[in-house]
Amino acid sequence: MNKDNSTQTVWKEEDLTPLAIRAFVGLGLPHGDAVEVVKVLVQADLFGLSTHGLSRIESYGERLQVNGINAQPNITVQSPALALRLVDGDNGVGPLVGMRALQAAMDAASQCGIGMAFARGSNHFGPISPYSLFAANKGFASIIGSNATTTIAPWGGSDARLGNSPLGFGVPNPGGKPFLLDMAMSVVARAKIRNAFKRGESIPDTWATDQKGVPTTDPKAALDGFLLPIGGHKGYGLALMVDMFAGLLSNAAYLSHVKSWVDAPDEPQNLGHFFILIDTTKLGSPQWLTERMMDFAAILHDSPPADASRPVIVPGEIELEKMQQQKQNGIVLDPAVVELLHQHVKGVSNA
Amino acid sequence: MNKDNSTQTVWKEEDLTPLAIRAFVGLGLPHGDAVEVVKVLVQADLFGLSTHGLSRIESYGERLQVNGINAQPNITVQSPALALRLVDGDNGVGPLVGMRALQAAMDAASQCGIGMAFARGSNHFGPISPYSLFAANKGFASIIGSNATTTIAPWGGSDARLGNSPLGFGVPNPGGKPFLLDMAMSVVARAKIRNAFKRGESIPDTWATDQKGVPTTDPKAALDGFLLPIGGHKGYGLALMVDMFAGLLSNAAYLSHVKSWVDAPDEPQNLGHFFILIDTTKLGSPQWLTERMMDFAAILHDSPPADASRPVIVPGEIELEKMQQQKQNGIVLDPAVVELLHQHVKGVSNA
Repeated sequence: MNKDNSTQTVWKEEDLTPLAIRAFVGLGLPHGDAVEVVKVLVQADLFGLSTHGLSRIESYGERLQVNGINAQPNITVQSPALALRLVDGDNGVGPLVGMRALQAAMDAASQCGIGMAFARGSNHFGPISPYSLFAANKGFASIIGSNATTTIAPWGGSDARLGNSPLGFGVPNPGGKPFLLDMAMSVVARAKIRNAFKRGESIPDTWATDQKGVPTTDPKAALDGFLLPIGGHKGYGLALMVDMFAGLLSNAAYLSHVKSWVDAPDEPQNLGHFFILIDTTKLGSPQWLTERMMDFAAILHDSPPADASRPVIVPGEIELEKMQQQKQNGIVLDPAVVELLHQHVKGVSNA
Repeated sequence: MNKDNSTQTVWKEEDLTPLAIRAFVGLGLPHGDAVEVVKVLVQADLFGLSTHGLSRIESYGERLQVNGINAQPNITVQSPALALRLVDGDNGVGPLVGMRALQAAMDAASQCGIGMAFARGSNHFGPISPYSLFAANKGFASIIGSNATTTIAPWGGSDARLGNSPLGFGVPNPGGKPFLLDMAMSVVARAKIRNAFKRGESIPDTWATDQKGVPTTDPKAALDGFLLPIGGHKGYGLALMVDMFAGLLSNAAYLSHVKSWVDAPDEPQNLGHFFILIDTTKLGSPQWLTERMMDFAAILHDSPPADASRPVIVPGEIELEKMQQQKQNGIVLDPAVVELLHQHVKGVSNA
């Protein structure tokens, strides 16, 4: 709880946020931009999505320091039609570009009922669920997607040509918890295969292929190969569609044109995102929506569980409970992340 | 090729279309409405999606005859915001309501760059890919979804509370083939499990659960149980989100409120759909889009196949090739479907 002691791993949100802002200012961001970036990353940590939270300051920081990401971008927003916004991120930090695009799409949706922002010139923008939550809190339903560095082979192919592109949805609930869905297209994350390998276990042949593109039960071969998409050709198709909306239509890079931030940290990735926002207040009253959302969740929760110890849950439930708990008891952080935040803060005083 | 001989199973589109229109007029539809319905169903047959094509005249016809579907609906379109349309289908035939909603969303998108129609009071509306193709042919990218009769248990649950809701995407290609993705959320269709049962084979435990909600390799138990969604909790979440946009937000029925047309053919289902359309001409020139679409497809096609006999394909490729082939050589139809069309045509003269 004490920000002067970096061995502490539990932080109050109100202490962590200013520390993280100072760290990003230390990396060269204007204060207002750092505020936006930290909103997304702290929200990710609140949700318990620590791999996509403040821990990302490691890769963001490295790339900012070699000018692979632009610390002071001139982000522009064009409006080619009443409800469309084209956001050029000028290679800024991903969550900053994401927040600007979210705001642009909300503005358009306020005006027209539905609004869409296409973002180009961006970078890794964190998880999707923080954006969906911010939108839901203001009454907007959302469909949001991003492309990503290529790690997946086309269905039936044998080399990495598409990203594990995330797609997210949100629906507000004026009188209760919103629904939030944030998913990547692979059956499992790479970490799950790594864990099976460490334990000497085989894996289902639906998780990954070897490097020739052939499904495998050997975790070692899988780690040298490619993650498989959910539902085979279905997840492959979904990942492509996300890239078409986020990359191709947004005039960003797509598929193998997306540069790897691991292989080329000093080069712009030109990632793309899309944000579709719907103003639900145009569809009915808050009472109407609350009633339907409560009923929808109740129908699902009431299904007798196949395993009595695991009741049926709805999308976002785990993350929203984690948030509530961590807002009360503090946010659990890896001490190494806190150490890195402090280092970048010091970067300011040394500058 | 000869429409007077119902044992023929290959039909020219220009002969089949007027026959099908007369059949729907025979079922009580105004001529103009029958034209719209047949556009969708013949397009489904052209794509080779015969389970969702004119064969549906069997269930549509039965329900029209018992007034479970309204043959002469008064479909209304409200505009609660510049880019939003609320379509009340008045329990009309699904593809008619679908075509009206598609048109309403295209009108809104022409005006604002993006437009969305929510449809309620509808019925089974055919496959999604015909709508995506019609939109793509006019320069619109699309995201379209519908809810459906409940056949799937919530993830970890043990009774049918959500539908195998389809979700579709389309991206136009002014100089070549569009991308079309039309998918339901189950790993496989029920027919695939039925076939395994007939052959006495076991099935992967990722396809379905038994009636207690426990994954099974026994096709018999699976047929008594529930289809599993792609990617487990991911496909479950996706199916829910489709229902939230198509049913909950559109003020239609959702989840177990959707009535089964099999159990209650004479009652309105109040199905819901959503259509999000984006006018791609606002994003760049036809040349710009064609170039990017061609490059996108080429990157995927160029991935060396894991199995040399099965080159990598892109979403919609199979259906668009089938269409090209059947436009040239004729549409293959089950003689029983043709017989049914003729019976309903006769219904006119007997009326």
